[in-house]
Amino acid sequence: MSLVPTALEAAGRIADGSLTCEALTRACLERIAEREPAVQAWQHLDPNSALEAARRIDRCGRGPLKGLPVGVKDIIDTGDMPTAYGSPLYAGFRPPRDAACVALARQAGALVLGKTVTTEFAYFQPGKTRNPYAPSRTPGGSSSGSAAAVADGMVPLAFGTQTAGSIIRPASFCGCVGYKPSFGVIERTGVRPFADSLDTVGVFARTVEDAAFFASVLAGRPRLRITEEGFRPRIGLCRTHEWDAATPATRAALEEAGRRLRAAGLEVREIALPEGFRDLCEAQNTVMAYEGARACAPEMLTAPDGLSAKLREILQAGAATASEDYDVARRLAADCRAQFADVLGDLDVLLTPSAPGEAPEGLEATGDPVFNRVWTLLGVPCLNVPALTGPSGLPVGVQVVGRARDDRRTLAAAAVMALVLSAG
Amino acid sequence: MSLVPTALEAAGRIADGSLTCEALTRACLERIAEREPAVQAWQHLDPNSALEAARRIDRCGRGPLKGLPVGVKDIIDTGDMPTAYGSPLYAGFRPPRDAACVALARQAGALVLGKTVTTEFAYFQPGKTRNPYAPSRTPGGSSSGSAAAVADGMVPLAFGTQTAGSIIRPASFCGCVGYKPSFGVIERTGVRPFADSLDTVGVFARTVEDAAFFASVLAGRPRLRITEEGFRPRIGLCRTHEWDAATPATRAALEEAGRRLRAAGLEVREIALPEGFRDLCEAQNTVMAYEGARACAPEMLTAPDGLSAKLREILQAGAATASEDYDVARRLAADCRAQFADVLGDLDVLLTPSAPGEAPEGLEATGDPVFNRVWTLLGVPCLNVPALTGPSGLPVGVQVVGRARDDRRTLAAAAVMALVLSAG
Repeated sequence: MSLVPTALEAAGRIADGSLTCEALTRACLERIAEREPAVQAWQHLDPNSALEAARRIDRCGRGPLKGLPVGVKDIIDTGDMPTAYGSPLYAGFRPPRDAACVALARQAGALVLGKTVTTEFAYFQPGKTRNPYAPSRTPGGSSSGSAAAVADGMVPLAFGTQTAGSIIRPASFCGCVGYKPSFGVIERTGVRPFADSLDTVGVFARTVEDAAFFASVLAGRPRLRITEEGFRPRIGLCRTHEWDAATPATRAALEEAGRRLRAAGLEVREIALPEGFRDLCEAQNTVMAYEGARACAPEMLTAPDGLSAKLREILQAGAATASEDYDVARRLAADCRAQFADVLGDLDVLLTPSAPGEAPEGLEATGDPVFNRVWTLLGVPCLNVPALTGPSGLPVGVQVVGRARDDRRTLAAAAVMALVLSAG
Repeated sequence: MSLVPTALEAAGRIADGSLTCEALTRACLERIAEREPAVQAWQHLDPNSALEAARRIDRCGRGPLKGLPVGVKDIIDTGDMPTAYGSPLYAGFRPPRDAACVALARQAGALVLGKTVTTEFAYFQPGKTRNPYAPSRTPGGSSSGSAAAVADGMVPLAFGTQTAGSIIRPASFCGCVGYKPSFGVIERTGVRPFADSLDTVGVFARTVEDAAFFASVLAGRPRLRITEEGFRPRIGLCRTHEWDAATPATRAALEEAGRRLRAAGLEVREIALPEGFRDLCEAQNTVMAYEGARACAPEMLTAPDGLSAKLREILQAGAATASEDYDVARRLAADCRAQFADVLGDLDVLLTPSAPGEAPEGLEATGDPVFNRVWTLLGVPCLNVPALTGPSGLPVGVQVVGRARDDRRTLAAAAVMALVLSAG
C-alpha cells in the first residue's frame, strides 16, 4: 500500500520545497485510481481540475495548509463542485458558495480535492462507499467517504460532521483518527443542517497530530496544535451505560487499551457515569429526530418520494414527538452538561468505546452510533484513536472524550494515548 | 388608513367562510399598492402569483394558518421566490427550497405574499425601506421590511430574525408587535446564518395574540397560544446597565408604562440587574463579530468588493478578535444565563426599553440595538409592545422579557400588558 504522506509531513516538505502540491495531488489521484473501484469514497472528483488547482497553489498559494489536499464530505457546500447532500433530490445542485469551513481551509492554502460520499442528509441511509478493509462491510457513516478515503491513504485530511456518531464510528470502522470538536468550535455555515443543537463539523486524519493541526487552522485556534512534551494524562476507563451493546471485539479492545496505557505508566482508573446520565442516549435520539423533522420539513412537504423510506420513517417519528418530550430531553442534556466537568474530577479524559465492534457485514446500514450519542449531546470533544484489531482482522478504535471546550487537553491526551497504543 | 384585519380575525373569518384568502390577499395588495411607494417594504412581490396561490389555498388549503398572507424577510430562503440576503452578491439567487420555517407556515395553510427588505446579511447596512410614520426616518433593522409592512397594515404577519436587535428595535420604531422567542424555538434551517449562537427566528404581528398564534404554529407548540384569563403578571421595571443610552422619549415611555400598569392594579417593582451582567452588552458584540467573520468568510474571501464598507470593517474586526476573548464572552453569557431565572425571583417578566428612543432621522443607519443585545445573548424570549408616542409623534415601544424557554408565560404577560398600555 502506498499511502500519501501525513498532513504535517507533507506541509513540512511543501514549505521546504521538497514536495509540490501538484506532486502530492498526483500521488492522491494515483492512490484513488488504484483503490476507488473497491472503496468508492468519492462523490465528485475531477482529476484535471484538481491538478490545475494544485499548480495554482504551487504558484501563489500560502498559509499553514498550503498544498494539502482535503476531502470534503458532500453535506458541505462547495462553490465549484456539485453538492448533493447524499440525496437524489439535490443531484447536480450547485450551491452559490463554499461553506465557511471550506473557505477557511482554502484561505489557509488547502486544495479541495473532491467531495466524499455521505449518507442521505448525513442520516442513516448509506451511500456507495465500502469499508477499505473489507468491501462487503460498511465503512460506517454518515461521513463514510471521508473516513474511508483518509484511512485508505487517498488523501491526508478530510472534513466530516457528527450529529449522533458520524465521525467517531466510521473512523473506528475504517481505522483512522476522527475528531469531533466541542460543539461550535468549527463554523458550520454552509453545512446542511440536520439537528441544530447537535450538528458539529470535525475532521479525519491519519494521526492525532494531523487532526489537531487541521482543526487548529479551521478554528483559528493555534493552541489546539499538539506541542506539549511529557504530558501524562490521567485517564478514566468508562464502560458507559451502553456497555451491553459492546461486542467482544470492543470489550477486548477497551481492556487491552487500558492495559497498555497502564503498562506505559499512565494512570488509568475505572469510572462509572452517574445514574442521571442513563437516559442521555435516548434523549439524543429524541432531540435528533425532533430537530431533524423540522430541518427536513421542506423536503418532507414538497418531495417526500425523493426521501428514502428509512428517513421518512424517522422524520415522521420526529414530527410526532411532543415538544414536551423534546424539552425534557434538552433539559436533561443541559443538566448533565453542567455536571460533566465535575464527573471527570481530576481525570483529564475518558477512554471509552468508539463503536460496538468491528464494522458490521453488509452495506445496507452504517452501524450503531450507540457509543457516540451521549458525547454529541453533551457537546464534548471526542476522538477515535485507532488501537487494535478485531477477530475478523478489522480495526477497532477506542474513543477519547474530554470536557466541553477543553479540546486542547483532549487532543494532547489522545496524542499520547495513540502513541502508546500504536506501539502495541 | 385601511389596515388588513388581524391574523386571528382573518383566520376566524376564513374558517367560517365569510372571507376568502383571495379577498384578503387583494386587500393586502391594495394596501401595498397605495403605500409601497412611500414605505418600500418589499424586496420581491408578484401580485399575480400571489393571487393565484390565494385561489389555490381557497380551493384546497388547510391548517390553522389557512389563507393568512405572510411576509418573509429576505434573509430566509424561499423556493419559489428569489432570495438575495440583502446583498448584491445574491441578486436573483434562487435557493433550491423553502427554509424550514417557511415550509412549516405553508404546510399550515399560510400564503407567502412576498419577500421583505432586510439589511445586508441581516447586519447593519440598510435596505431601501422607510419608516411608515416618517419617510425620512429609518424603520430600524435588520428586519426592516417585515416590521414596516406589518406596522403599515400591508400584511397581518411577517417573519423576522434577530442576532442583536433586529426584531425588537424595528418593531419599536414602526409601532408593531415583534416577538423574538427563546433561542431555538423556531427552526432556522434555510435562514442565512450570521452568528450561530445568536441567530433567532421570530415574528411580527399587530397584536401579541397574533404573534403568539403564528409562533405557536411555526414551533408546533400549541401551548404558546394565549388563552389564559385573569393572569396578573408580576413585572420588574428594569432600566438595565445601558440606561445612559435611553433618550428622554424612552425614559418617559418606560415610566409611563410602569405607571399605567400599576394603575391597572398590576405589581410593578423596580429591579436592577446584577453587576456581573454589566459586560454582557459588549460580550454580545464580541460574539456576533467573531461568529459573523467566520460565517461570512466565503464572501469575504471571494468577493469582498461585493460587501459594504461597513460590513467589511465589522468582519475584519471579528476576524481579528482573539478566540480567547470570544471564549471569555461565551463563558460570561453562560454564567449569566444560568443566573437569570433567579434574578427574576418571583417576577414573571421584565419591563425594559425596546430602543433608545423614536426612530432616528436618516436612512443611512438602522439605529442602535443597545437595549437588545443582552437579551439575545441570554437567549431569553422578548417582545416589543407598542405603547406610547414620542415627542415627534412616532411610536416608542417597551420590551417585555421573560425567562429562557418560558415563552408561554412571557407571551401571556405581554398580552395583558399590551391591553393595559393600549387603553392609555
